[in-house]
Amino acid sequence: LLFSLGVTSMVNAGAMSGSGNLMDFLDEPFPDVGTYEDFHTIDWLREKSRDTDRHRKITSKSKESVWEFIKSLLDAWSGWVVMLLIGLLAGTLAGVIDLAVDWMTDLKEGVCLSAFWYSHEQCCWTSNETTFEDRDKCPLWQKWSELLVNQSEGASAYILNYLMYILWALLFAFLAVSLVRVFAPYACGSGIPEIKTILSGFIIRGYLGKWTLLIKTVTLVLVVSSGLSLGKEGPLVHVACCCGNFFSSLFSKYSKNEGKRREVLSAAAAAGVSVAFGAPIGGVLFSLEEVSYYFPLKTLWRSFFAALVAAFTLRSINPFGNSRLVLFYVEYHTPWYMAELFPFILLGVFGGLWGTLFIRCNIAWCRRRKTTRLGKYPVLEVIVVTAITAIIAYPNPYTRQSTSELISELFNDCGALESSQLCDYINDPNMTRPVDDIPDRPAGVGVYRAMWQLALALIFKIVVTIFTFGMKIPSGLFIPSMAVGAMAGRMVGIGVEQLAYHHHDWIIFRNWCRPGADCVTPGLYAMVGAAACLGGVTRMTVSLVVIMFELTGGLEYIVPLMAAAVTSKWVADAFGKEGIYEAHIHLNGYPFLDVKDEFTHRTLATDVMRPRRGEPPLSVLTQDSMTVEDVETLIKETDYNGFPVVVSRDSERLIGFAQRRELILAIKNARQRQEGIVSNSIMYFTEEPPELPANSPHPLKLRRILNLSPFTVTDHTPMETVVDIFRKLGLRQCLVTRSGRLLGIITKKDVLRHMAQMANQDPESIMFN
Amino acid sequence: LLFSLGVTSMVNAGAMSGSGNLMDFLDEPFPDVGTYEDFHTIDWLREKSRDTDRHRKITSKSKESVWEFIKSLLDAWSGWVVMLLIGLLAGTLAGVIDLAVDWMTDLKEGVCLSAFWYSHEQCCWTSNETTFEDRDKCPLWQKWSELLVNQSEGASAYILNYLMYILWALLFAFLAVSLVRVFAPYACGSGIPEIKTILSGFIIRGYLGKWTLLIKTVTLVLVVSSGLSLGKEGPLVHVACCCGNFFSSLFSKYSKNEGKRREVLSAAAAAGVSVAFGAPIGGVLFSLEEVSYYFPLKTLWRSFFAALVAAFTLRSINPFGNSRLVLFYVEYHTPWYMAELFPFILLGVFGGLWGTLFIRCNIAWCRRRKTTRLGKYPVLEVIVVTAITAIIAYPNPYTRQSTSELISELFNDCGALESSQLCDYINDPNMTRPVDDIPDRPAGVGVYRAMWQLALALIFKIVVTIFTFGMKIPSGLFIPSMAVGAMAGRMVGIGVEQLAYHHHDWIIFRNWCRPGADCVTPGLYAMVGAAACLGGVTRMTVSLVVIMFELTGGLEYIVPLMAAAVTSKWVADAFGKEGIYEAHIHLNGYPFLDVKDEFTHRTLATDVMRPRRGEPPLSVLTQDSMTVEDVETLIKETDYNGFPVVVSRDSERLIGFAQRRELILAIKNARQRQEGIVSNSIMYFTEEPPELPANSPHPLKLRRILNLSPFTVTDHTPMETVVDIFRKLGLRQCLVTRSGRLLGIITKKDVLRHMAQMANQDPESIMFN
Repeated sequence: LLFSLGVTSMVNAGAMSGSGNLMDFLDEPFPDVGTYEDFHTIDWLREKSRDTDRHRKITSKSKESVWEFIKSLLDAWSGWVVMLLIGLLAGTLAGVIDLAVDWMTDLKEGVCLSAFWYSHEQCCWTSNETTFEDRDKCPLWQKWSELLVNQSEGASAYILNYLMYILWALLFAFLAVSLVRVFAPYACGSGIPEIKTILSGFIIRGYLGKWTLLIKTVTLVLVVSSGLSLGKEGPLVHVACCCGNFFSSLFSKYSKNEGKRREVLSAAAAAGVSVAFGAPIGGVLFSLEEVSYYFPLKTLWRSFFAALVAAFTLRSINPFGNSRLVLFYVEYHTPWYMAELFPFILLGVFGGLWGTLFIRCNIAWCRRRKTTRLGKYPVLEVIVVTAITAIIAYPNPYTRQSTSELISELFNDCGALESSQLCDYINDPNMTRPVDDIPDRPAGVGVYRAMWQLALALIFKIVVTIFTFGMKIPSGLFIPSMAVGAMAGRMVGIGVEQLAYHHHDWIIFRNWCRPGADCVTPGLYAMVGAAACLGGVTRMTVSLVVIMFELTGGLEYIVPLMAAAVTSKWVADAFGKEGIYEAHIHLNGYPFLDVKDEFTHRTLATDVMRPRRGEPPLSVLTQDSMTVEDVETLIKETDYNGFPVVVSRDSERLIGFAQRRELILAIKNARQRQEGIVSNSIMYFTEEPPELPANSPHPLKLRRILNLSPFTVTDHTPMETVVDIFRKLGLRQCLVTRSGRLLGIITKKDVLRHMAQMANQDPESIMFN
Repeated sequence: LLFSLGVTSMVNAGAMSGSGNLMDFLDEPFPDVGTYEDFHTIDWLREKSRDTDRHRKITSKSKESVWEFIKSLLDAWSGWVVMLLIGLLAGTLAGVIDLAVDWMTDLKEGVCLSAFWYSHEQCCWTSNETTFEDRDKCPLWQKWSELLVNQSEGASAYILNYLMYILWALLFAFLAVSLVRVFAPYACGSGIPEIKTILSGFIIRGYLGKWTLLIKTVTLVLVVSSGLSLGKEGPLVHVACCCGNFFSSLFSKYSKNEGKRREVLSAAAAAGVSVAFGAPIGGVLFSLEEVSYYFPLKTLWRSFFAALVAAFTLRSINPFGNSRLVLFYVEYHTPWYMAELFPFILLGVFGGLWGTLFIRCNIAWCRRRKTTRLGKYPVLEVIVVTAITAIIAYPNPYTRQSTSELISELFNDCGALESSQLCDYINDPNMTRPVDDIPDRPAGVGVYRAMWQLALALIFKIVVTIFTFGMKIPSGLFIPSMAVGAMAGRMVGIGVEQLAYHHHDWIIFRNWCRPGADCVTPGLYAMVGAAACLGGVTRMTVSLVVIMFELTGGLEYIVPLMAAAVTSKWVADAFGKEGIYEAHIHLNGYPFLDVKDEFTHRTLATDVMRPRRGEPPLSVLTQDSMTVEDVETLIKETDYNGFPVVVSRDSERLIGFAQRRELILAIKNARQRQEGIVSNSIMYFTEEPPELPANSPHPLKLRRILNLSPFTVTDHTPMETVVDIFRKLGLRQCLVTRSGRLLGIITKKDVLRHMAQMANQDPESIMFN
């Protein structure tokens, strides 16, 4: 709204103006029109209006010639082309990252003799022993101890391998943190809080730049391989958004319009999740539920397209070597029973508590990092955390292996051929059964050992993740959260399974768990636990369940997942409404107007607008009585983004709004290029020049930079309505009037500060414009 | 916005007012506050504001006592309870409808001797011959000819069965149309256009009432069983919305707030699609993409919950007897190949053309029905169409069977045990292969016959569906559209298959279709064709693909489906942007402001507002100079829903907006209950009474019914912005000002008329307020 008319009239109203030649210079497009300064908020209505203008121009031109018609077709299709390109690049990058992580994770253990760039699995593909049990026996793959001192067993070999593991981890982590610090400071973190803020209409230059893309991709491989407790899923969303930003800068339709650009970025976020989990529908819903601010239906279709292209590109690269699309493919053979809802809901409660604990502790630690000397040694911090992680992780097989492998193992049902110690059950030699349908059996010694190791791993993961997330390296928390939940879930699952086996005459088990039946699937508990923990941290519900549904590919298990996800959300919400991303947004003071926050206070626009009582009156321009010098002084003395224009200081009747940027530009141009414009020339915004004394200098007409349709509310408007208007229309500022008189102004920052104040937070925590 | 402050101040500002006792009667809640008249548009901002007030009151009360706290908890949970109830009832109704349709469709053919309420399949469950081939041979199931004249073969038996088929069909159709006409005229049609309009904020009393629910459920069974070319999926959405409306009337949170009620209805629509196809995620996306207007995240979660509950209730009822959730369960064993994208895209083009043809012809026919004498004989029309359908349908096996069965057969891949004539291929006796992976074979005589019959059935379906949709019976068009596409698709699929078999040395087949390979799946073509045709008619994309994805349960076939759906949408959009639902909305003149329509014209608010040039000035109230009689005359002479209040007729400075309804009520109350209020009492809206001559009668204070925050735009605001504001904020009207002076008013109807005019349509086609 603001400014939109200014642009419209600039484009075509020249002929209507009486004093056209005086103002011709304004007919040339301004340089930098439509750009915003760094760390400023965009005006969605203005962007939309500019895009409609552009579209109108192209449509009317397209009737002129064939070439213009083709150009208009190209313009209409450019959206789909951008989506295709984003999908292709995001899918390729995800595939490359997967392959590189695979290789470098294995490099910590050993090296392939036939070709050093092979991962353990690739190295042994050519070998004859390719079953899971014999995976370690492939002769071409050599552990460091074998290679360096020719020993594969014994204490010294163990210690050598341990040291190599730590050394590689430290090397990777050091490289990563150095690269981030030197080349792309924005590449750290998961990026989702910032992307949420950017999508809501905030400018952070360089956050989605080419350097960030490159460095984040490289360092993501390094940090994941270093064995730190972090995941690559969140950063992949950032990487995909960087791709989106890159490709949208190739098309002027998107590069010159911050609103349209955000539509592309929303779709790119969907593509990111799509490749992270192999879940295109889940990705679109994630973008819709969690990340995006403005999500029209057109974006829905395009996001879906981008997500599909990305998923299929990834599948063509086939990094997991199994032509599966999904990260964790699971197939369960037994249904679940009503009575199991109780442990599932318990897991939901655990997930909610974990979410609360994680968010509180992590935010406290990040705040400490921001405010104390700790924040001055980011490299040291990463090195120390990596060292501690590596030292503690190596002895425990569940922390030594990569977190995705761990989750995959925990999710899996124990088949007949499973060699994992989690599947070390005591078989009944008399029983013969089909491979897929193994009855519940008593746990063997491996399962008991696994339970202890899992419990220790769980505690370790909980603690170390809190300190890891937020360091100056790329770090996602989907995978660590899921790992925490999967470990807890698997333990609960095994517990329930053994309880059902040993007490199948108990009334709760009697109906569905006869001896010899396969009634409990511990892998399903792991999956439910993972969903619960992820839900507790991020507060996703629908997209979470859909992602999990795409992993299992069956509607069967939606009810357990839904029960756990919703319980976890309720429990976590009881302790605080903010998910981890919103918490980080608040911590950083970004101007993010959350759609989920309901404003229920009873304040009015007059309580929020500035000037407050006792403050000096609002800086306004009058329509035909201020001189150029007056305006220049006003611009110099204030730092407002724009000034309301009123009929006169007495009547205070609002006629429009002038942007600071355009005012400066117009005056500068006029002083240089228009004759007779001096410091005491009168500036006027009306159609006709004011009547001036005979000897006064030539007046300066500025109607064309005046936005004649500024957005206004009355002083009695309830703030809940004002918040709603800001949110839905994406305003940057709004003028407050009473009976047509201008009283004050409310900016987005004022709204956010007021909301913070009402929620008993420090209003000064909102930092940007 | 409008009115919101009125309510707020009514609730708690009593103490602040100087003349409290005079106006005490206004502190009592108005009867009917917040209700709207039939065929009027609601004001979303006002509804939202009223809900926030209610919520605030409950929250502040909840701290007073334990009982109030429990009540506040119940209130917070009532949303989930409503969703649970909707899911349960919608699932149950869908199950009952499925069972009843099954039975009554078979009743047209014969009857079960063991129990007449068994369908053919249920009847033969106990029989020994239960394979598909022997299905007809079950002795307990008797065709009418067997039962009545003891003949099962021969011409006379055929004619008798033919007659019985027609008779039953006519009986069912006559019953259905009579029930609809007598008890619930709103039960006809698919209901989706009206539900879209209702969800966008329009009141149609009784459209979602209990009678409609009951009659629509019963008649839906009747019309589907009668063999008419219609489906039950659209009407199921209407049925589910009726359930939603019923349950929301049980909770005052929803029954008293039209905005909140629409949140429930959105979720109910998702539940409806969820049970119609067994696709909960598709249902939620359908509600989001196709039906809903205001879809906050909270509604997303709740819709998902309702859709899940509904799906699982339906599965527990298990109407298909196979414990599958989905309507058409398919499993394909061969992947698709890149070269197949060409026929898939051709099917997309066919779907788009079919969509255009159907929409144009159907709308033309419906318009003729509305405007000519044809519309006066709805019963006769139904009888005639049913008779023609039954007469033509019976001889062709593909039109005789129910449309869902037909689609199911067309979707299915030819397994080794398939007995359908579509699978009558010539087997190579030398070839032994696993059951699932049958190589491409030459078509047998059955396939050739099937192709002819399918072609005839296709033409018949295309023609008859155009005349069926829109009659005064419940009728959905998902199933007929899918049938058209499935028939076309299967034919194309068989064609490609035979081409590939006979010409496997052609360059396009050489790479992927060696002799003896199973390279073409005609069932997949049927599915792609169905998606394309459904997409052409409804213009769904994402939800369509997701529904299809849930049917097949695999990501494998998303690309063909997506390609066909998008092609079909593009082709259909090239001939006209409107889907069938929007076309029917326009035909009926509902005030529906489509989110998808982009307004790109360059008009300003001043061109749209009323009064136009030459019209008498806007009817306004002045803040302190009109008498009660003046206002009563104004109310009597105009039929506006409300009047702007200005400082004086000279200054025309706007101070607020008063609703007609409240004005009438306030004056009536004051005249009855306040002393000294006579016809020439001055009415004032200011805080303090105006200074009056000594002998003037007692003035009437009406500040509390004044909405102090009416929504305003300036006369220079571009209409695209105004449309955006109306759409996003759900306004009912908006005042137009210039420099604080009131110029005119724009209502939703004005906006819709202006949009119709700009699109070269008749603005008078917008009929309601």
